[in-house]
Amino acid sequence: MNPETFAPAHFGWSFADGVATVTLNRPDRKNPLTFESYAELRDTFRDLVYVPEVKAVVFAGAGGNFSSGGDVHEIIGPLTEMAMPELLAFTRMTGDLVKAMRNCPQPIVAALDGICVGAGAIIAMASDMRIATPRTKTAFLFTRVGLAGCDMGACAILPRIIGQGRASELLYTGRMMTAEEGERWGFHNRLVASEEVLATAQDLARSLVAGPTFAHGITKTQLNTEWAVSLETAIEMEAQAQAICMATKDFRRAFEAFAAKRTPEFAGN
Amino acid sequence: MNPETFAPAHFGWSFADGVATVTLNRPDRKNPLTFESYAELRDTFRDLVYVPEVKAVVFAGAGGNFSSGGDVHEIIGPLTEMAMPELLAFTRMTGDLVKAMRNCPQPIVAALDGICVGAGAIIAMASDMRIATPRTKTAFLFTRVGLAGCDMGACAILPRIIGQGRASELLYTGRMMTAEEGERWGFHNRLVASEEVLATAQDLARSLVAGPTFAHGITKTQLNTEWAVSLETAIEMEAQAQAICMATKDFRRAFEAFAAKRTPEFAGN
Amino acid sequence: MNPETFAPAHFGWSFADGVATVTLNRPDRKNPLTFESYAELRDTFRDLVYVPEVKAVVFAGAGGNFSSGGDVHEIIGPLTEMAMPELLAFTRMTGDLVKAMRNCPQPIVAALDGICVGAGAIIAMASDMRIATPRTKTAFLFTRVGLAGCDMGACAILPRIIGQGRASELLYTGRMMTAEEGERWGFHNRLVASEEVLATAQDLARSLVAGPTFAHGITKTQLNTEWAVSLETAIEMEAQAQAICMATKDFRRAFEAFAAKRTPEFAGN
Repeated sequence: MNPETFAPAHFGWSFADGVATVTLNRPDRKNPLTFESYAELRDTFRDLVYVPEVKAVVFAGAGGNFSSGGDVHEIIGPLTEMAMPELLAFTRMTGDLVKAMRNCPQPIVAALDGICVGAGAIIAMASDMRIATPRTKTAFLFTRVGLAGCDMGACAILPRIIGQGRASELLYTGRMMTAEEGERWGFHNRLVASEEVLATAQDLARSLVAGPTFAHGITKTQLNTEWAVSLETAIEMEAQAQAICMATKDFRRAFEAFAAKRTPEFAGN
Repeated sequence: MNPETFAPAHFGWSFADGVATVTLNRPDRKNPLTFESYAELRDTFRDLVYVPEVKAVVFAGAGGNFSSGGDVHEIIGPLTEMAMPELLAFTRMTGDLVKAMRNCPQPIVAALDGICVGAGAIIAMASDMRIATPRTKTAFLFTRVGLAGCDMGACAILPRIIGQGRASELLYTGRMMTAEEGERWGFHNRLVASEEVLATAQDLARSLVAGPTFAHGITKTQLNTEWAVSLETAIEMEAQAQAICMATKDFRRAFEAFAAKRTPEFAGN
Repeated sequence: MNPETFAPAHFGWSFADGVATVTLNRPDRKNPLTFESYAELRDTFRDLVYVPEVKAVVFAGAGGNFSSGGDVHEIIGPLTEMAMPELLAFTRMTGDLVKAMRNCPQPIVAALDGICVGAGAIIAMASDMRIATPRTKTAFLFTRVGLAGCDMGACAILPRIIGQGRASELLYTGRMMTAEEGERWGFHNRLVASEEVLATAQDLARSLVAGPTFAHGITKTQLNTEWAVSLETAIEMEAQAQAICMATKDFRRAFEAFAAKRTPEFAGN
């Protein structure tokens, strides 16, 4: 994939300063997901593993909303007609989007405004950081459509972000989490005005691009892979991972800059 | 067990609208637990696996307190006389209560007022959600009686609810967590007036009964079983679990209701 | 090691009332760590396993700061000249300090004032509890020197304390966490005035010394070893661990004191 020319069919894409911005863009329907957009998002995040020019990703929605999730008519209707092998193929595909978001080395910053529900809430959850607005309404509303709260990793990931008790309430009831709750509970990293949410997320992404991006990729790998290992194992894993980063030129650049009382400039290698 | 006629010897039981309410009811002693009540509670939650008419549980205390925990004279005294095999049999029995509460498919809502300490705090912790009051005083006071903070799963479960640092303080010191701290830290899902706590917990339980109760049971299973698995494994587990739920009639009912702009009615199948 | 006479070369040490206070004490440089101080700290915490007279530890810094972390000239410079085997030996040594802090039975209370960054923030994180002041500035600033956020267990431990989303922001950006954020997010257990932070931490440590210290050591073991096991396994582990504590004299002492309406006095056996 060439990030300069990439032109996905089912979502918006822009690329500047090392930051790719993915925009769900069917604003008349509050940016629902479809079978096609799920698959293209999954493939895109898988491809990003091999696109070093992209050093951070912003995930946004068009028109004042993030996403209304899986479309009732385009996804839920067809699912009710499917046999089990097709159902499992679908839930594995949606899970594969979360895996691809976690497995690419680029940190992902979600820019969340307005409606952020269902699969939209999951995409927010699967991002590394979340910038929201006072208008952001987040709901893991799977139980409202007769399903379980365990969708695309929610029963494992959401409790790690906001705690087991709050996650249990959101996943059992499907109720809306207000923006203020989201900030208090640690889901949203910050609330800003709606007009500023995209720019704030892109600024944060650009600040990461200005940092040691190879090391950021290692940070992301460790945040994923130390999920369920013993303390002793985690500490050994980090000894190895950080030793790798100490062998980079970015580390030497930082030392030389500090020694010369300059601000370091990183190159991601 | 027939939930309509069940009459436990050591705690109160009522059943209405699919909600079973378990009430610790020795209010003169602030509802302590005894060897007998532990065993009967364990057996009851084990039985609930096979009682589909019960779709949610409220766990409450009588007389303005939740529970004072293991009774000093009826439990602690006898324990000090026991040999190791009996001690281990006891700690396994109390652990089995937590296992039984986690392994039954019904979501459990604790209604917490007044004193909620020792095994009482553990029962609150092992519930899925907690409604408390400004009067609720919660303490994991095991160290106050010469024991470790690791009782019935507390060192694993409490950090997931309120974070490792706060849990460490509560478990090492045995100090009281105020109701306001409990809400801020994510232990209590909500604080309401004492007069309203039981009704609020039952309303929440009833709202779950009105939802897709088979799917709620799957949510609970996943909240338990994804506790310590890798991210990749958790996502595959959820792909399978949610595919099961997509094969239910509740999922179809929801789609048909949305298509007809009706509110869905779920049947738990 | 004799805690009465122990005189470490690279940090301060005092011992009173069962509480050892470790003080990073190069206040002119804001108490940086060096190769030598890392090694001596590691060895000291390893030794504490066999020093039952020390029943709790306070970890403090001299001169109004906790620690500026690994010294730029004394650590970072030399690291940029090392080959991989030496780098890995270094990252394993620093990781071994965290392992030693977690593996000694004494609860560790960090007294945090002023600057608390890099390896200083890690030592704070690896402690059991943290008392801070409004002036405490905490930063996991590894990315600022070209490294990854995964240092000495941070990607595993920090998310458990403050949640995955907040930890991700701190570890990717290296930004400063204010004292107020630290308290709100559960990193700091309490904020007190700078003049009081050491005394408050020592008071907390002394209150633990007055408790069942053998049981505290078991609590610490369980907080470490239940990190990544299944719920069922954690509950069985605690049944065994608590049965051990029920066989102690401290447990009997507590019962006898309560029966006689006295305050129990514990002896740690």
